[in-house]
Parts: sequence; structure tokens; C-alpha cells
Amino acid sequence: MARFRKTLGWISVAAVTLALGGSAVAGGNPAAGDLRSFPWRAKNVILVIGDGMGDSEITLARNYTVGAAGELALDRLPYTGQMTTFSVQETDPSIPDYTSESASTASAWSTGQKTADGRISTSPSTDQDLTTFLEIAQDRGMKTGVVSTADITDATNAAAMSHVAARGCQGPADMASCPQDAKENGGPGSIAEQAIDHEVDVLLGGGLSRFEQTITGGPDAGLTVLDSAAAKGYEFVGTRDDLLASDGTKLLGLFTPSHMSVDWAGAVAANPPSGPQRCTEDQRPANEPSLAEMTTKAIEALTHRSRAGFFLQVESASIDKRDHVSQPCEQIGETVALDEAIAVVLEFARTSPGTLVIVTADHAHTSQITEVDAAPAGFSSILLTDEGGEMLVTYGTGSTPEGQQHTGSQVRVAAAGPQGWKVVGLIDQTELFDIMERAIGAS
Amino acid sequence: MARFRKTLGWISVAAVTLALGGSAVAGGNPAAGDLRSFPWRAKNVILVIGDGMGDSEITLARNYTVGAAGELALDRLPYTGQMTTFSVQETDPSIPDYTSESASTASAWSTGQKTADGRISTSPSTDQDLTTFLEIAQDRGMKTGVVSTADITDATNAAAMSHVAARGCQGPADMASCPQDAKENGGPGSIAEQAIDHEVDVLLGGGLSRFEQTITGGPDAGLTVLDSAAAKGYEFVGTRDDLLASDGTKLLGLFTPSHMSVDWAGAVAANPPSGPQRCTEDQRPANEPSLAEMTTKAIEALTHRSRAGFFLQVESASIDKRDHVSQPCEQIGETVALDEAIAVVLEFARTSPGTLVIVTADHAHTSQITEVDAAPAGFSSILLTDEGGEMLVTYGTGSTPEGQQHTGSQVRVAAAGPQGWKVVGLIDQTELFDIMERAIGAS
Repeated sequence: MARFRKTLGWISVAAVTLALGGSAVAGGNPAAGDLRSFPWRAKNVILVIGDGMGDSEITLARNYTVGAAGELALDRLPYTGQMTTFSVQETDPSIPDYTSESASTASAWSTGQKTADGRISTSPSTDQDLTTFLEIAQDRGMKTGVVSTADITDATNAAAMSHVAARGCQGPADMASCPQDAKENGGPGSIAEQAIDHEVDVLLGGGLSRFEQTITGGPDAGLTVLDSAAAKGYEFVGTRDDLLASDGTKLLGLFTPSHMSVDWAGAVAANPPSGPQRCTEDQRPANEPSLAEMTTKAIEALTHRSRAGFFLQVESASIDKRDHVSQPCEQIGETVALDEAIAVVLEFARTSPGTLVIVTADHAHTSQITEVDAAPAGFSSILLTDEGGEMLVTYGTGSTPEGQQHTGSQVRVAAAGPQGWKVVGLIDQTELFDIMERAIGAS
Repeated sequence: MARFRKTLGWISVAAVTLALGGSAVAGGNPAAGDLRSFPWRAKNVILVIGDGMGDSEITLARNYTVGAAGELALDRLPYTGQMTTFSVQETDPSIPDYTSESASTASAWSTGQKTADGRISTSPSTDQDLTTFLEIAQDRGMKTGVVSTADITDATNAAAMSHVAARGCQGPADMASCPQDAKENGGPGSIAEQAIDHEVDVLLGGGLSRFEQTITGGPDAGLTVLDSAAAKGYEFVGTRDDLLASDGTKLLGLFTPSHMSVDWAGAVAANPPSGPQRCTEDQRPANEPSLAEMTTKAIEALTHRSRAGFFLQVESASIDKRDHVSQPCEQIGETVALDEAIAVVLEFARTSPGTLVIVTADHAHTSQITEVDAAPAGFSSILLTDEGGEMLVTYGTGSTPEGQQHTGSQVRVAAAGPQGWKVVGLIDQTELFDIMERAIGAS
């Protein structure tokens, strides 16, 4: 790809940003709080994904909460660029698919290679397992963690820690679409099984039901995935209280049968527009932790009595899921939940300057802000923002409120810390793999 | 605004990028071709605007032409960030308008201050003239130019070089909305009159009809604006051939009565989707120059036998105008026209490293890329791209194909040359004024 050549040209800038890291020019101690200053190598990598969080979704959340001129935590990352998110066709991988989804996109940054929609870190057409950054990090002795508000076996998370032909193959009983991956057929098993077999140190999110299924092949046949995890030394937590009380370092936290609950509520978009409305906050059940709490706990677990670095992937999944169903309040609430997790991550990075932080999205989505007196073709709602403005949010990529689609726009990518400057300019999603790999010195 | 404080924190990076400009670290002569290396000060400033060119519009044009993995000229700018584009309410400027338009947004970067939609470099509510960057540049002895495919008196251009209460006040006969600005009432006159009275050195675009109107007040009362321009020493050119043959340095080129013609043609979006289609290129009439040709000529005119620096604003106006009417091919063609002009600008900047180049949009727009088999609520078309892909483009912010609206998403901002690094991160549109002002040493 022609664009990849550009990155090489940045070596001159790299030399200078290195100089900045240890230089008096910065006017301070680079180890004490500047997200731009850093050592050359990253000890830790934290990749934060807003699923479906295009620039429009970011702007919506900013406008509603801190105001159009305000600053979210995600706005504080010093390096910014744009990122392409296309996938490729299964039957002819030389032809792009201009509108991708979470499996192909997460596979792209997890493996550095493009694949087809629905695939989990396997190659298009040939169905080969592609080495993931998580595996590389583990090989180098780093601890690893995956945190998400979705099923922990959902696509974005799955691509970090497993290889299957179809994203639906989440538990041992879900293998109809990828029999070749089933353990009884010599495969690595479902996504849930692979997460445990990979011994990812920290797994926090939804999706308990997948882990209650019974393993059908291999040495753990007859056990549930939960039993298998216990045998491998995982501590299981199932509620917010249990999570907050835990000091485990090999932690499996599954708080809901499938996706976790959303934080906010409000009226669905309609035609003519619903509202004007204010969103209802604080809707998350008390037994479910927030994404920020899970992120805090994951970092604690990954650093507790450990001098090894870590790789942590954090996802707010339901920005996407609530955008699909034209729910502006729920979508904004999940963006805010992500932003609170980003604040946690940035505070850790500020005091641990060997931490590369990347914040981006897997793909863009439907929601748009338009004139309050417009008559959009789709489904809309007028929100009354905290600063007293009126904002019309509209959803028009599907013919029903429940049927909205991903969009193919390039998305924002932002970074802080070692090698973070490499996201400046235009990159492709596969380059995140290269950036993370180089940051830990693995290439 | 809280966000503005962040910029001050960048002083450390500034020192380092300065070091890069003159340093052996860069591995080459900073005067010979690296768009990242530069002197501290800008001699020239070139601001390139894609009207309505959000990230989705950029992605559409890239996918269709050079391919999803390809690189447009605009992708080559080394510094990138996101930019907020909101305007403010006329009656209460403390309340944002989350969906802005060209007049308020161009006023924001032209003056460094937010205003209400429709205003041309005048303050909301109080209707005071706000000093523009073009005026500051002229005060410092710089030459100035404005190039656009719209009426040269249309909003984006108008805000650079005039002050009126309403964007419609383009010619002496168009002053009904802003009688206080008419010359016979002691005002500065219409936008066309002010462009000439300001003696902007190069004015190239559409909008001849405004200049054929008769001035109704002041010393030139009774003359047309064209006559007034001739009296002030402007050379007039009305065709592509005349433009290419001209070696004038004070140049008024008006090639169409109103907006210039678009470059490409194709089927309008529909429901169900039109297409699959290929766009028809090369539709511009032979007597109209391309935006790249106008840009080339403007730079020639502004630098001919001149050691003064210059400020040039270049706009591709009909990305917006064709997005409003759901015409994907025409919209992409105008994005490509802009990109060809950007290639001209970057080639000039490469050999004139004291040139700050900024490429951005005034606001985001409607068009989205979604699944080829989706059934969007609005109006869609399937395009067959140069690389053999199928891309569905959809328009859903209006209830008719002709009635699509601006959107309020943050947009891409990119830069090259002196002070260009300041666009990295999240900026507001008003900060472009500050960046340009500091780049020429005027603040």
C-alpha cells in the first residue's frame, strides 16, 4: 500500500520526539506527567476502542456534556490523525469492502493484516490463523487484559485473543459456523475457550452465558469454560462488589449473561423527531461495574507485584450497539463511559510514562448532528444539552430505527506516550499493529 | 474556552519542531522539500477549504479514485487534527449553534471570533466589524488572493475580505438584508465592492453578475463594480484562455455569472438506490479554468516580481453544493478538483519552505458510506470504484434529494510548514486565525 511508505519518512520526526522525551526543552521531568514525553520504548500498551465512535459520535457526546467548546478526556491525547477502516472481500481479498465491522477491524489492528468481515484474526479465503499483538506481548513476558462492556467474547475482544472463522463462534455450543475450529475437530475451540487457554490475565465484561457452556473436545471436555478457567487458576467475580473487593491478578469477571447494561436512557429517535429531551443518567444496575471501574481494576491487577509490562485493550461496545438502534441518549452515555475510562488510563499513563495509549474506533457509524428545524429522511431526536443548546441527532442509514448501519468514513485516532506520534497523519488500521509492535521492541 | 489552554502547553513541542527545522536530525536540507521542516515564521500562508468536506467526503473521494488504501494529495500533509465548527446564536451568543454554515465558519477562522450563521466577519447581535486575517496580512505588506469555484462573493470567500451582516449582500443590488452596510447609508458596501475596495490582489472564481451591478453610493456611485475594479488597476479575465495568457499581478477573473461548473457528472441518489454507476469525468466547459489552474495562476500572480509574502485562500465550493442535492459523482469530482489544487499548493510549499499550508473544511456534511445491501432511509447511489469495488453512498439529512443539510461533526484539519504542528490535537475553527497570525509574526 502506497501510504505505508510515508511512515518511513517520519524517522526524522521520531528522532526529534525522542529528543523531546529526555530533553530540558520540555521544561520539566519527562517522567512526571507530560503525555507527550516518553522513553523510546513502551513498557505498557493500552488500546482503547470506542466501538462505532466516529467523529460525529465524539462531537455529539462533547456537545451534550462538556459543551461544544469543552474538552473530553479523549480530547487530551496529544497526537491525532485519521485512520482508514475498510476490510476486504472473502472471495477476492484484493477488493476492498468499504464498510467494515468489528471482527475484521479488530483483526486488522490485532494482526496487522486485512481480513474479511466476520473473521476473527484469521485470513480471508485461506482461513489461516494470524499472529496477534496479544500473543506477541505474551511471548515477551507481558501481562495481558481485555475489558469490554459487551460479551467478552464479542468481536472486538475476540480478535485480540483468539482465531476463528466466524465471530459468532463465541462458546463451545456456538460452533456451527466454524466446525473446523471446534476442539473435537482439532481446532483451538470457541472464543471463550481460547481466551482461557491463552491465559489472558484479566478478562472483564459481559458474556457469562458463553462460559457456562460445556466444552466438547480436548483435555477439558465435559467441563464448562468456567470450570476450565478455575482449573487454570482464574479467580471469578460476578458482581461489582466482588470485583472491587478482589485483589486477584488472574481475573475473570463476567457480570451479565450477554452484553452489560447501558448507563443512560432516553427516547428513541423517530420521524418526526422525538424530544426535545434530556437524557436520564445513572441507569446501570448496582451489581454491574462501570467501564472506568473495570479499567481501574484491570490496571491494578496487571501491575500488582509485577515488574512486567502489560497490554490492555478496553472497549466501550454499546456506542455502536445503541447507534444501530437510533438511541442517542444511550449512545452518548456509552461514549461518556468510555471517556471516564480514558481519564483513568491517562492518569495511569501520566505517572507511568512508559505507557503507549491509543484511543480510536473500529469503524464510523450512523448518527449525525443537523439543523434543529431540518426534516431528515430517517429517525431523529432533539436533545437539550447541558449548556442549554438544542441539538438534533439523526439516523438515516437504515429504513427502521432498529436497523441502522455502520459507515465507512475514516475515523479519529489519537495517542499519547512512546511512539504515539506515529498516528499523526493518515494511517490504516493495520498500522496500529506495527506501531504497538515497534513500541514494545518486538519488530 | 478551556481547550485553548492546551495550546499553550505545546510550547515545548514548538521548541522541538523549531529544532527540527534547522537540524541535522532531519537528515536533509530543510529548505529543500520536507513539508515538515520550516523556518519559525511563515512568509506565505495558503488556506485551502473543502466546503462541506468532512471525513466521510474525503473517504468517498479516496475510495472512488486512488482506492481505499491509496493516498490523495491532501493525505500528504504531515500534521493532522480535528476541529470543531459550531457557531453561536444571534440573539444569545453564549449558546452554541451545533450545525453551522459557511459564513459563520469562515468568519471564525478569518477573525478568530465566533459569530452567528449568515454573518460575514461581523459580530453576533452587536453587528460590529471584526478584523480579518486578510486585513492583518495586508497591513504587514503581504499580497492577498482569494480563489473559489463559487461566486467569489459567496460566504467562504466573503468572510476573508469583507464585513456585512448577511451573506446574501453580495452585490450593490443585493443589499436588502443589510441596508446598514450599503454605501449610501455610510456602510462599506456589498461584498463585491469591499473585495475591490480592499484591493485583494487576486480574485478568481465565479460571480460575474455581482460585479456587473451598479454601485449605488460612495465615490464610485454609478459605475459597475467591474468599472470600479478597472479604475483601481485590476486586469479582468473572463475565460480560461485569458487567464492562462495573463501575466497580471492584480487580477480579477470571473468565469461564470454565478457558481462555476462542476467537473464530473452522474446519477442523483435515489430511493431505492441509483446505480451501480461510474461517474462521467471532464465535464467542465472549456472556457472555465480548473481550480488547480486558478490556484497555479494565483500563486504566480502573488509571487511575480514580488519579495513580499502572501496570503491565499482557495476553496472548492461545490463539494458542499452537490452534497446538498445528493449528487455523489459531482461531489467527488469537486473533491478531486480540490485535491489537484492541493497538489499545486504542496509543490509550491515544497520549494518555498516558508509557506504555512492549512487544509480543512468549514463544516461536515451529509454523505455517508454504508453497506451495499443496506436500505437507507434517505437517497442512495451505488458507485463502482476505480479499484473494482462497490460503494453505497447515502444522503439522509433531508426529506428530498435536493434538501440535504450540513452536519455538525468535528472535521479534519491538516497542515504543513511553519507552525503547522499547532493543528495536531483538537482545535476550534477560531484557532486557525491565531495560528495564521502567529505564523506571520503578527501577534
